[in-house]
Amino acid sequence: MNHHEQSAVSRRGFLRAVGVSGGAGAMLATMGALGLAPSAATSAVPAFRAPTRSDFNLTGRSGARVVVLGGGVAGLAVAYELGKAGYDCTVLEARSRAGGRNLTIRGGSVETDLDGHTQRANFSDGVYFNAGPGRIAQWMVTMDYCRELGVPVEVFTNANADAWIYNESAGMTAPVRYRTAKADVYGYVSELLAKATDQGALDDRLSAEDKQRLLSFLQSYGAIGGRTGGWAYTGTSRRGYLEYPGAGNDEGVPLGAPPALADVFASNVGRYFAFETGYDQAMLMFQPVGGMDQIPKALAKAVGLQRIQLGAEVTGVTDRGGRVEVTYRQGGRDRIVRADFCVATMPPHLMARVPHNLGTGVTAALAGFPATASGKIGLEYRSRWWELDQRIYGGITETDLDLSHIWYPSSGFHGRRGLIVGYYNTGSNARTYSALTPLQRAERAVAQGVKIHGDKYRTELATSYSHAWDRTRYLEGAWTSPPHGTAGYNLLLQPAGRVYFAGDWLSHETAWQHGSFVSARTVVTALHQRVMAD
Amino acid sequence: MNHHEQSAVSRRGFLRAVGVSGGAGAMLATMGALGLAPSAATSAVPAFRAPTRSDFNLTGRSGARVVVLGGGVAGLAVAYELGKAGYDCTVLEARSRAGGRNLTIRGGSVETDLDGHTQRANFSDGVYFNAGPGRIAQWMVTMDYCRELGVPVEVFTNANADAWIYNESAGMTAPVRYRTAKADVYGYVSELLAKATDQGALDDRLSAEDKQRLLSFLQSYGAIGGRTGGWAYTGTSRRGYLEYPGAGNDEGVPLGAPPALADVFASNVGRYFAFETGYDQAMLMFQPVGGMDQIPKALAKAVGLQRIQLGAEVTGVTDRGGRVEVTYRQGGRDRIVRADFCVATMPPHLMARVPHNLGTGVTAALAGFPATASGKIGLEYRSRWWELDQRIYGGITETDLDLSHIWYPSSGFHGRRGLIVGYYNTGSNARTYSALTPLQRAERAVAQGVKIHGDKYRTELATSYSHAWDRTRYLEGAWTSPPHGTAGYNLLLQPAGRVYFAGDWLSHETAWQHGSFVSARTVVTALHQRVMAD
Repeated sequence: MNHHEQSAVSRRGFLRAVGVSGGAGAMLATMGALGLAPSAATSAVPAFRAPTRSDFNLTGRSGARVVVLGGGVAGLAVAYELGKAGYDCTVLEARSRAGGRNLTIRGGSVETDLDGHTQRANFSDGVYFNAGPGRIAQWMVTMDYCRELGVPVEVFTNANADAWIYNESAGMTAPVRYRTAKADVYGYVSELLAKATDQGALDDRLSAEDKQRLLSFLQSYGAIGGRTGGWAYTGTSRRGYLEYPGAGNDEGVPLGAPPALADVFASNVGRYFAFETGYDQAMLMFQPVGGMDQIPKALAKAVGLQRIQLGAEVTGVTDRGGRVEVTYRQGGRDRIVRADFCVATMPPHLMARVPHNLGTGVTAALAGFPATASGKIGLEYRSRWWELDQRIYGGITETDLDLSHIWYPSSGFHGRRGLIVGYYNTGSNARTYSALTPLQRAERAVAQGVKIHGDKYRTELATSYSHAWDRTRYLEGAWTSPPHGTAGYNLLLQPAGRVYFAGDWLSHETAWQHGSFVSARTVVTALHQRVMAD
Repeated sequence: MNHHEQSAVSRRGFLRAVGVSGGAGAMLATMGALGLAPSAATSAVPAFRAPTRSDFNLTGRSGARVVVLGGGVAGLAVAYELGKAGYDCTVLEARSRAGGRNLTIRGGSVETDLDGHTQRANFSDGVYFNAGPGRIAQWMVTMDYCRELGVPVEVFTNANADAWIYNESAGMTAPVRYRTAKADVYGYVSELLAKATDQGALDDRLSAEDKQRLLSFLQSYGAIGGRTGGWAYTGTSRRGYLEYPGAGNDEGVPLGAPPALADVFASNVGRYFAFETGYDQAMLMFQPVGGMDQIPKALAKAVGLQRIQLGAEVTGVTDRGGRVEVTYRQGGRDRIVRADFCVATMPPHLMARVPHNLGTGVTAALAGFPATASGKIGLEYRSRWWELDQRIYGGITETDLDLSHIWYPSSGFHGRRGLIVGYYNTGSNARTYSALTPLQRAERAVAQGVKIHGDKYRTELATSYSHAWDRTRYLEGAWTSPPHGTAGYNLLLQPAGRVYFAGDWLSHETAWQHGSFVSARTVVTALHQRVMAD
């Protein structure tokens, strides 16, 4: 019994206990509150159970030979899970390392993009740059794989009260800290709602008791005055201080009175607040210690490095009825691998270009997944001035500049050097940057970052490395927006003869490793059931 | 030039740069936004500058002999900073280890409280329990000391969307996750304010443009419908899922429709939301890796262990005019130490009992600081069921039970065992627990925690250790509420002859190590100036 099963069992045990003491209503409420899976009868998908060697005992069956196209997270997870039962898997990966879009750049990393730009990362020892996925939510199955594979995790700093907000297009001439922006928005929202409530404007919706409770909440939430003060928001220590309180009679120097209500809403700082409440982005978020690629590294090790062919570009897939033949080119030579089954986890728009005999419907379906552009730049600094000068220990600065997001590092606090993600953008903003040379990208990102952080953003810069996913060979995109519900999408959820498809692009969590893992598990389950029924 | 000075210089440089390009208004706005110190002219307190050996060069002066009463954070910081310039410090600490209320319990820790209860911690290797301070805000000078002393820090998980809220007295029969509670409260608040705004109830406060911006914000913030839908909040994925989205066509099973507005406000879950916006509690927060006592350990090492007398109970302080004599009892023998100056950092209500010749005004002033009760219990579990079963990786569960807060561990994720702080309470709730035996405290805490977490809260428990600060020898309290602004408080900010007073109790950040450090720095500065002027 693996730990997933243990968890499932113990959840059920807990729910039974709650059910006994609290009745069905309490049990349902608890389930909802716990975010637990409903019972098997209502569950959309049964819990994953990895194939095991014991599945084949006494049946005379054994693990089949499987060729996996693509050594990203989905492909590695397929080989890993099938490998538990003794399947003989071969992973074909076109790039020079496994992991796919789970890519961590360190000093010495070299890559030439589709435009011929070659970059060599000159990062210092211990400095890394997660060019692909950077965060994991607590509920994601990615966390379970980290645990199972022995990949330690630490907090990813997805939100920080001391990070900046800077909306240039809204007329802001200086950045404002999240804590200040929140205090002011929550303050004015509370003031307005308290006034309307107290004046009876919502009496058709609120009982007298509701009103009292709401007003009490708003006074706490917004730090506003009471009725006699007109429920006014006039500022709060939550805005932060020019100088924080100190010794003796030093009460500190508060930031002072807030801007006028109209100015606060005109600055549009509130547009970023919902992010932190997203089911997939709310803190706490996590990352592997030492770089996101610790996950594919651990997967690859568990699969067996000898099973993973690197630099292996797939050139053809042929279903022969009783077996599958996959041709690929590696080291200048054409090769072939024959297997009982194939699992194709390559990006769909690239798989669509691979010659195959699976039917034109498959090709059309694969071509129906659009590729999203996204890019990041890693800026290594000679000092951690953001910690020393600005007291920002991690988190994300949000902007309406074309760099979009700036990430401060979630580890190595107080270290000598550190790496800031100087832009993380998508769509047209990403394409703006990917059209530039790596040097131009760095210049553009730094010029904008200086507006927020001051000169050190330029003067302390040691080196940089940018990654444009749309211009990356063998990937050509960051992620897709799957055509959920279309006939094409559904077609690829079924095997085409002996060829299965898997990847985050066949899930409802695209762009997350969670999506890769759950898709891999689904295919592993289907393939294993087929073998067991054979 | 130490790094604090460097920071100050670079901040000024940055401000100058902003001032040049943006004018004085922009500069002021930037300063406010940055949370930077105002210029020396308006600064309440000049930046701290540690004494150095070079201060004595060419002047013929040298560091004086100083006896420090109390080896907590303030006392150690005084000895550490004075030691940089060659002052000859002796620290007298009554307890068996330095650190004062900065106390980390590990396996083997033994202590007998004022009621004669002896506890021996049976925690496993690597498991620790911060019985005293547990968190540090980014802006606190405590962070600078961690950096300077080489104490690595990591995120303290002060808030987690997947932690629970449980208000038993409000009629809740099951806990609710923060993410769910926030989605519902923000949703209904947004709905109500959008309705009132759109109906013109706030037209005297809002321009047409304000209204449009506010409505746009509320739709994003509350995930509410538009005008045609009556701005209604009907739930959102932010509430969380029974089953999170998966592969293929698995969109997941959302938690579903929210409770009615009246029920949400009746549950009073919103009372906890303001905590996360506090200037001293907003995430990101930090802790030393491996236990909060890494700070006093590093301080003590830097001071020199030979300078710290443990088990040394101060029995008298006499100012002889030209010197100070402090008598103490150690190992059953009466001892004396003579010094040029004394810095008393003991808890004021205990210092008030020490015989001295500093005047009755000093005694009365010291006695004017009330002692606050507070307690915690560390519950070590055989498994990290909160991570495995409930997907809670750190954070704090808030309750209206007398246990108040439950802390999940901020480190050791996915480890074999882990320690939950099963209660952290103050005042009457703390006294309720401190009146119990350690076993009774554990039983009470577990019985309440089971209501939230289910049976594993009891069945997986391995061992526990509780700490009641009001019943702790040589401390007799967790912290104080200083009588700021009184003549007594101000009296103790000045030296009584050759005796200075320091501690978080003489600051505006009582109960925080920041308060201890800034108070220590103030006294170090004053004492050093006196020596230099002598």
